[in-house]
Amino acid sequence: MVQTVDKLEQEYLELLKEQTSYNEALGLMFWDLRTKAPKKAVEYRSEVIGMLSQKSHKLSTSDKMKHFIDELKERSEDPIVRKSIEKSEEHYDRAVKIPDEEYKEYVMLQSKAESVWEEAKEDGDFEAFQPYLEKLVDFNKKFAGYWGYEKHIYDALLDNYEPGVTVDVLDEVFPKVRDSLSGLLEKIQQSPTKPDPSVLQGHFPKADQRAFSLEILERMGYDFQSGRLDETVHPFAIGLNVNDVRVTTKYDEKDFRTAVFGTIHEGGHALYEQNIDSKLAFTPLATGTSMGIHESQSLFWENFVARSEAFWENHYDLFKNHAPKSFENLPLDTFYKAINEVKPSYIRIEADELTYPLHIMVRYELEKALIGGEIQVKDLPELWNDKMEEYVGIRPRNNAEGVLQDVHWSGGSFGYFPSYALGYMYAAQMYGSMLQDVDVDKVIRAGDFTVIKEWLTKNVHQYGSMKKPLDIMHDVTGEKLNPDHLVNYLTNKYSKIYQF
Amino acid sequence: MVQTVDKLEQEYLELLKEQTSYNEALGLMFWDLRTKAPKKAVEYRSEVIGMLSQKSHKLSTSDKMKHFIDELKERSEDPIVRKSIEKSEEHYDRAVKIPDEEYKEYVMLQSKAESVWEEAKEDGDFEAFQPYLEKLVDFNKKFAGYWGYEKHIYDALLDNYEPGVTVDVLDEVFPKVRDSLSGLLEKIQQSPTKPDPSVLQGHFPKADQRAFSLEILERMGYDFQSGRLDETVHPFAIGLNVNDVRVTTKYDEKDFRTAVFGTIHEGGHALYEQNIDSKLAFTPLATGTSMGIHESQSLFWENFVARSEAFWENHYDLFKNHAPKSFENLPLDTFYKAINEVKPSYIRIEADELTYPLHIMVRYELEKALIGGEIQVKDLPELWNDKMEEYVGIRPRNNAEGVLQDVHWSGGSFGYFPSYALGYMYAAQMYGSMLQDVDVDKVIRAGDFTVIKEWLTKNVHQYGSMKKPLDIMHDVTGEKLNPDHLVNYLTNKYSKIYQF
Repeated sequence: MVQTVDKLEQEYLELLKEQTSYNEALGLMFWDLRTKAPKKAVEYRSEVIGMLSQKSHKLSTSDKMKHFIDELKERSEDPIVRKSIEKSEEHYDRAVKIPDEEYKEYVMLQSKAESVWEEAKEDGDFEAFQPYLEKLVDFNKKFAGYWGYEKHIYDALLDNYEPGVTVDVLDEVFPKVRDSLSGLLEKIQQSPTKPDPSVLQGHFPKADQRAFSLEILERMGYDFQSGRLDETVHPFAIGLNVNDVRVTTKYDEKDFRTAVFGTIHEGGHALYEQNIDSKLAFTPLATGTSMGIHESQSLFWENFVARSEAFWENHYDLFKNHAPKSFENLPLDTFYKAINEVKPSYIRIEADELTYPLHIMVRYELEKALIGGEIQVKDLPELWNDKMEEYVGIRPRNNAEGVLQDVHWSGGSFGYFPSYALGYMYAAQMYGSMLQDVDVDKVIRAGDFTVIKEWLTKNVHQYGSMKKPLDIMHDVTGEKLNPDHLVNYLTNKYSKIYQF
Repeated sequence: MVQTVDKLEQEYLELLKEQTSYNEALGLMFWDLRTKAPKKAVEYRSEVIGMLSQKSHKLSTSDKMKHFIDELKERSEDPIVRKSIEKSEEHYDRAVKIPDEEYKEYVMLQSKAESVWEEAKEDGDFEAFQPYLEKLVDFNKKFAGYWGYEKHIYDALLDNYEPGVTVDVLDEVFPKVRDSLSGLLEKIQQSPTKPDPSVLQGHFPKADQRAFSLEILERMGYDFQSGRLDETVHPFAIGLNVNDVRVTTKYDEKDFRTAVFGTIHEGGHALYEQNIDSKLAFTPLATGTSMGIHESQSLFWENFVARSEAFWENHYDLFKNHAPKSFENLPLDTFYKAINEVKPSYIRIEADELTYPLHIMVRYELEKALIGGEIQVKDLPELWNDKMEEYVGIRPRNNAEGVLQDVHWSGGSFGYFPSYALGYMYAAQMYGSMLQDVDVDKVIRAGDFTVIKEWLTKNVHQYGSMKKPLDIMHDVTGEKLNPDHLVNYLTNKYSKIYQF
């Protein structure tokens, strides 16, 4: 019996709805565990999460799904169905290529490795973690082989996070970024100008930080009727559906920067998810298209907006209303320079906006070589420290502040790190294009960011996952990935601050 | 191929786990919508709820479920499996007896009727609601016929909420309660003693009410590592799993009684769910056994503990720390009498603890007669008002404060109301038994309720749904349902307060 395309499409969309329903429930459970759930809830909740994840996974790899893919791939003329089928097929292919037994073993390894890593990090003991990391690398090499690639084996992993971006693409841009920023860092360190971050010290009650953060989110155009702000340990934004996108943050009462820049960063992620076309609801397209494009949105707001001089020209008074008295007589210029101090540091997530990409280069180069078989896991600590010294100018004193600092590898996430630097480059390139349409500084200075939000929605948000990352970049900026934008932005900004 | 019982049991428990996982996810979504979710979330969330409810329902009525019921009913020797099978079978039988088409029509009617009722209530316009109520009654009569009953058609509906309790059981006890309380009410109204509730007026900031409520929950033995307290419009307690049982409350800044007694009431429900034996996790037995037994737990704490003189002897000082200054010189006795004022009122949920059961009698008698075909829907308003006048002594002035006040019938819930009065009787009967083991007033006066909580856990909580309501009552109290306990409790208490 031949089914009509209409009927098939309808059934396929129903299947997607089932799948996205599981994902929405899982998303809410994730949010709840990290913000509200009582301590002891986690044990049973984990089993529920496991059960629903499995249901969702089984759907992706079901014969029913395969049937829809085969039947609709060529025959559907609905662009949303066609693009969803493309996503479903990618997912299906990746999943079925891994033998069940291997996948099972890998999942157990991941969970074990993460707890081993946690302890190893605490003790700075790389050797404890090494055998697990070796197995994780081996699995990933094997999986990459199953999935296939054209040139570099690492491409198969990159594709999980940044579809269409390959080693060739990265190797054309990353070394330029790395060398330019290393050069910039040198100039900064030689400059006699030294911002003084000690002026930022003080006691910032949570309630004040929250009030200021809420006000800024509101101004960014974050819709509180479709979202909320809560406290957590490791901040994140999460889109449960296009009308329920939540932001979380962390308050450090000694340092307002954690919450303020953190909230704005997550707010950028949230704006992306809130402004996806609702026509994409209940399909795999109703979310950001890649890790990198997502990061471009968060970094756009965090760095290009909230760390700018224009932003603080407008918001410094508002900030002072929520800050200790010591800020009353602190000149704006001193404040602005202090929040933009550049200072090499060991820990990626504590890095300033100039050295941050250098931390990413260390990771990218190492994991590419690891997966490519050019280096061995056992040599990582030494290689990590060498690269840190070469690019960032400091040498970690132990593995806790070196190779063991990030959780990603313990979960088997290879190919993820590059998206942080890519996102930054995307953001800089978008910023360049936006400047052609909008007097960005003027808008920021006026404190009504509607124009910026609308520009991003029109060019990025609305599409959800309808377009691939590099297609978005091409459509928005008219050019391919171009590292000059980021380098120019940082050069302009920091040559003023550090006067060179 | 004959499967071993072990294997079957294992597979059956896995199916139950899938089902309880859906229910846990649905429970969290319910809690979230009523406490945290942003306004616009509801539209898409409703579709997710619909999808997961359907999955859960389909499991209950699946061939797989039927297979386990048939295979394990006689063969399993595991008491938890046997009792779960009994529950699964009840559920299966009830569901499959209703033709799909009728069920679908009924669900649509329910949803429509509820919104019609809401408007009708606002306008006090019974005639607008009447045709819907007629259809709802007809459906329920039809369903009762499908499900079957031995004596009274209403028994089939009662069984949904209070398994084992029939019209015969209720008609033996409810008239006694009704007549005794009506008599008591008369004496109270004739008494020259008049508690003065105006002394309770004042401004009670939310934060103070919350602090006091948290303190009381803690003393009751509510485990905050397995729960939390949030604000909502229509308070409830919800058990997501035995380690995650949440309480919600509502703060009226002009009247502390709403939050204080409301929190303690929901806390009583929560203690039940928190203290179910964890061996029952992921089965249909890991929840309270009936609406009535559940209500016995909430009312035990709300009335028998928190409205007692002993309770306030201990907690009045703590309360005053969170109350306006006017309470500083308010004598305990005046306060105690004021919170226990008896005053006929139109609205059930605003009723005091003595007139409350009379409101239930009105509903029970009417719905029994409706389902039994002795009265017609169109005559309800008049009959309602007559009964209110007869039992409570006041005649509603319009249908909004009369027959239209409660949501239950608009959702097709017939047979539910009796559990409120049953719960109260259960609580009184348990209180009687507890007195034989424990000097309850002394314990309450000491402010450490551990002994009370442990008594309830030992006799009620731990069993979850392993025992039926009347079996619990028999095991706990050694007698069958006995209305004297409630009547005696109320007579003793109010003859002191009103001095007759």
